[in-house]
Amino acid sequence: MLNTADILTQLDQRRRNYSLSRDLYCDEGVYQADLENLWYREWVFAIPSCDIPKTGNHATLQIGAYPIVIVRGADGQIRAFHNVCRHRGQRLCPKENGSSPKLVCPYHQWTYDLDGRLLFARDMGADFDASQFSLKPVHVQDRGGLVYVCLAEDPPAFDRLGGFMDDYVGASDLSNAKVAFTSTIVEQGNWKLVIENNRECYHCGGSHPSLCRTYSDNPLMTVMEGPNAASPEILSHWDRCDKAGLAARFVNDPGMQWRFARVPLLNNAESFTMSTKAAVNRRMGTIPWNDAGSLMFYHFPSSWNHFLPDHAIVFRLLPISPTQTEVTSKWLVHKDAVEGKDYDLKALTEVWINTNDEDRRVVEENQKGIRSPAYEPGPYSPNQEEGVIHFVDWYVRTMQDRLSPRPAMAAE
Amino acid sequence: MLNTADILTQLDQRRRNYSLSRDLYCDEGVYQADLENLWYREWVFAIPSCDIPKTGNHATLQIGAYPIVIVRGADGQIRAFHNVCRHRGQRLCPKENGSSPKLVCPYHQWTYDLDGRLLFARDMGADFDASQFSLKPVHVQDRGGLVYVCLAEDPPAFDRLGGFMDDYVGASDLSNAKVAFTSTIVEQGNWKLVIENNRECYHCGGSHPSLCRTYSDNPLMTVMEGPNAASPEILSHWDRCDKAGLAARFVNDPGMQWRFARVPLLNNAESFTMSTKAAVNRRMGTIPWNDAGSLMFYHFPSSWNHFLPDHAIVFRLLPISPTQTEVTSKWLVHKDAVEGKDYDLKALTEVWINTNDEDRRVVEENQKGIRSPAYEPGPYSPNQEEGVIHFVDWYVRTMQDRLSPRPAMAAE
Amino acid sequence: MLNTADILTQLDQRRRNYSLSRDLYCDEGVYQADLENLWYREWVFAIPSCDIPKTGNHATLQIGAYPIVIVRGADGQIRAFHNVCRHRGQRLCPKENGSSPKLVCPYHQWTYDLDGRLLFARDMGADFDASQFSLKPVHVQDRGGLVYVCLAEDPPAFDRLGGFMDDYVGASDLSNAKVAFTSTIVEQGNWKLVIENNRECYHCGGSHPSLCRTYSDNPLMTVMEGPNAASPEILSHWDRCDKAGLAARFVNDPGMQWRFARVPLLNNAESFTMSTKAAVNRRMGTIPWNDAGSLMFYHFPSSWNHFLPDHAIVFRLLPISPTQTEVTSKWLVHKDAVEGKDYDLKALTEVWINTNDEDRRVVEENQKGIRSPAYEPGPYSPNQEEGVIHFVDWYVRTMQDRLSPRPAMAAE
Ligand code: FES
Ligand code: FES
Ligand code: FES
Ligand SMILES: [Fe+3]
Ligand SMILES: [Fe+3]
Ligand SMILES: [Fe+3]
Repeated sequence: MLNTADILTQLDQRRRNYSLSRDLYCDEGVYQADLENLWYREWVFAIPSCDIPKTGNHATLQIGAYPIVIVRGADGQIRAFHNVCRHRGQRLCPKENGSSPKLVCPYHQWTYDLDGRLLFARDMGADFDASQFSLKPVHVQDRGGLVYVCLAEDPPAFDRLGGFMDDYVGASDLSNAKVAFTSTIVEQGNWKLVIENNRECYHCGGSHPSLCRTYSDNPLMTVMEGPNAASPEILSHWDRCDKAGLAARFVNDPGMQWRFARVPLLNNAESFTMSTKAAVNRRMGTIPWNDAGSLMFYHFPSSWNHFLPDHAIVFRLLPISPTQTEVTSKWLVHKDAVEGKDYDLKALTEVWINTNDEDRRVVEENQKGIRSPAYEPGPYSPNQEEGVIHFVDWYVRTMQDRLSPRPAMAAE
Repeated sequence: MLNTADILTQLDQRRRNYSLSRDLYCDEGVYQADLENLWYREWVFAIPSCDIPKTGNHATLQIGAYPIVIVRGADGQIRAFHNVCRHRGQRLCPKENGSSPKLVCPYHQWTYDLDGRLLFARDMGADFDASQFSLKPVHVQDRGGLVYVCLAEDPPAFDRLGGFMDDYVGASDLSNAKVAFTSTIVEQGNWKLVIENNRECYHCGGSHPSLCRTYSDNPLMTVMEGPNAASPEILSHWDRCDKAGLAARFVNDPGMQWRFARVPLLNNAESFTMSTKAAVNRRMGTIPWNDAGSLMFYHFPSSWNHFLPDHAIVFRLLPISPTQTEVTSKWLVHKDAVEGKDYDLKALTEVWINTNDEDRRVVEENQKGIRSPAYEPGPYSPNQEEGVIHFVDWYVRTMQDRLSPRPAMAAE
Repeated sequence: MLNTADILTQLDQRRRNYSLSRDLYCDEGVYQADLENLWYREWVFAIPSCDIPKTGNHATLQIGAYPIVIVRGADGQIRAFHNVCRHRGQRLCPKENGSSPKLVCPYHQWTYDLDGRLLFARDMGADFDASQFSLKPVHVQDRGGLVYVCLAEDPPAFDRLGGFMDDYVGASDLSNAKVAFTSTIVEQGNWKLVIENNRECYHCGGSHPSLCRTYSDNPLMTVMEGPNAASPEILSHWDRCDKAGLAARFVNDPGMQWRFARVPLLNNAESFTMSTKAAVNRRMGTIPWNDAGSLMFYHFPSSWNHFLPDHAIVFRLLPISPTQTEVTSKWLVHKDAVEGKDYDLKALTEVWINTNDEDRRVVEENQKGIRSPAYEPGPYSPNQEEGVIHFVDWYVRTMQDRLSPRPAMAAE
């Protein structure tokens, strides 16, 4: 199990544009460092806000060792708390989704207001001061209908990103959306392998027959920088969107932690369906055409998303162990769309249920090969795997800054 | 993983009347220290002696890393041994219960007498001295029909406790009892959380609809000290028992490692049944009335028990890992009671099968919440959780004494 | 977890002709030392070559952390490689057996020739030098139709052993054999316990009713040295074989790492069947009689084998964890023997499927007993367990040489 100095050495010695060392994908010490320096310090995607539309609705997730609950208050605000009772530490809300006017602990019924205050604790004696036992808050952001949480005491800035979320995701008007379906799978692979898999389409032709009906595996169509600066087809799509007031142009964090861009689907396809046509009989938000393509938004380390004219798919990944990652996908549709009438659930979900499972299989075999001491880092395709390079560069730089004893500023 | 000094620091710094620190419930090093300083040094409840009524009957259990076998000898005596063949270390008796005139190793048939002596080993050569290869004995006590074992070289005193077991449990005459049913479940929680759960009824109203038909969740009825000194109802029950010669009054170890008391059930209920009536058509031992209530006997770290007029339930807990505990419950009835005639097995067992499962669920959620680094110890209810305070005080004090480099006497 | 010095101490202090210490069978550090000093340095049995009879056939196995693939090339040669793609480390061949004209990575379709050269990698840019990304080779030997691999840079000598494999195993002509059936089981026991179990028949009478129909549990019949030097019955069998030109006499490595000998079955039985008659309607290779008995060949640490007139069974063991071992058995018959006509699959396989399972059960109980801190090493029977003594002596001596800081030569 690597210690901080070991990890820093491996980060410092890594070869640029090559995959990472075996330990960085497998080691328990690296996993703990990833949790402490990234997962417990960065903003992490939790849920779309339409997952808890009403007062008293709540949703839970687990970030590393931390159970979290996200609650819609009586004032309509979304708040997040450590999902741990202040009495004897019971997990307060055990289910993924629930609803109740107060948060009542299942063990001894200590009762918390939706804003986290302890309202009632039976038989605790005269000296008991309930005001000292509120639920512990977790930072939360709700922008464009996507809820992010951050476990750090001082979370990183969110304003610039939040502004773009308002603009780009806002066009899908998630406040008038609903969750049509949720899928949760566990991949037997390190979380970084799950992201690397997501950040390239070099594997798509060989892995994703259903996705490839509608999604181009040409990096000119989906990657935006360097050798893949936007192609004429993309540029004309953006011009068209501009005229309709639809935010579409490539915008990114300078460190590539996140990126937005709306791209056309293949051959004027409308949605990620087997038929290539829209799966839902009404569009979301202010998106003007069925062929507006997909707004792609990723955010490291926890999420990628597709916002299509007829539906959106939000993906959340959460690390479980050095070699296990949970991937949750939620399909969102207009809140008034009726299943069986306005959309067929199988047609809506089958392409990405297949795609997720296909990706799971290659990620798991990737982990098995990398576990070999004979594995050595190999070169990324400069053309096809630019997105992977962005990710590993972001990962290595961020970890170096946080693990390094030298002043981070001087080192830039 | 904590070392001894770390553990001692956490024990020394704990806040009285508050739950323990996260590590004390989760850490692998603490678990090993618990095994070495408590489980391998204290008397541990094994079986009711009626589980092995005849010569050659044996029963097995696993205390941490140690497999143990308990055997009824040709002389009627109960002996305990390490369940490990002296040849190549085979687990000698693989099953939970068995019977055979000798103990024959399943691997190469080395054959031991029921008193542990090696009687026969095939083809071991002329120099082989069988007398050097007896089974290794384990200390054993059989008082009042309950068999305890101790792995220590010098076990703690048992005499005072044993005397009370004779008196209190003796009234149920377990020598004329039989095991009607055994249930074994594994709870995904630290053994201390399993005991804490058992030592209070603050959670009963919210968790145990069937038990609460007959068992009072009022601490005045079931806890006996401090703010809950015996209530008038309890005192009058004890007076009635005194007159009938039935040992009933509260008696305890000064350090609260164990306690006996007979308490009435709720509303003159007779037994822990859905009907509130006796489950078995004949009483055990010399208990004079159907409404004699329950003799409650607990002993840390491994057991709690209910001795009712018509049946008894003995509970044994054994640690499996930092976050796993095995709980075995045995329902005992008079040996001449006939299933289907004198009792219905479902009616006899359903209340505590439900109750055990309800407790398992809250214990497992407790473990999940406590695993959070955001967990902090919370206050026990002075009124409702006095029994839990007794347990954690006993635990902390005992571990401090055993882990501490300072002379234990001077520290008192 | 033991370090090197601890392990060496336990090896140095072990008592001769006694089973090993608890840690040597259980400890994670010992397991890692076993992998690094034995499994990654010795020749390990992989497959019979008839498992991959044709160009493009391949088979995979996992030695500790190393996935390996064995391939039949266009030139008919068998080669072995690390089963890890040189791009991003995908396990190249995920299945136990497969066939394809080139080795194509399932992730991004990098394509390797059957000799390991990278032939094609899409879109890797002008600077990419494919010649630098061949599959990494693993040493391989194919003698007498048995394929061994070695992960060491400088493998131990194989010549003397290989010569005997040609002679002894050659008589079964595995080049004209086929795999009729493969069974893979996982035993919950240390790999050394699996070998110890295999190296004695002290347990056979009590464990193997079907095997004992045809295989003698008398060590005079199956062990060849010391107190069990070949019996008259064996000697006359060897004389008969000599005259027919069938290699049969006991031959061994001076350190007992391997041994060959052909022994008659019990009561002129022909094969390991319930009927005691041949299971297959034609003999293999040049074996002249149905009652030629079994050529027994073992090789530490990974294999034992039986070559009978009508079929052969090759056994491969691979360690999975300190307390888990995979055992793969393959039944070989003449390549022209037709299932259902020349042999019945159940009759062919049932005896050793039963025997493997019976051995699995005793090995698992052995591990459970040895896990007890009360376990102490016991004496091996000088008569019955000589083969086990050979194994533990070989193990202890080899580990001492490799772990010891003193020059190995001087210490001999
Ligand atoms: S743990 Fe929540 S009320 Fe007791
Ligand atoms: S291990 Fe018990 S007889 Fe061999
Ligand atoms: S990992 Fe093999 S081709 Fe990419
Ligand atoms: Fe994919
Ligand atoms: Fe309970
Ligand atoms: Fe065997």
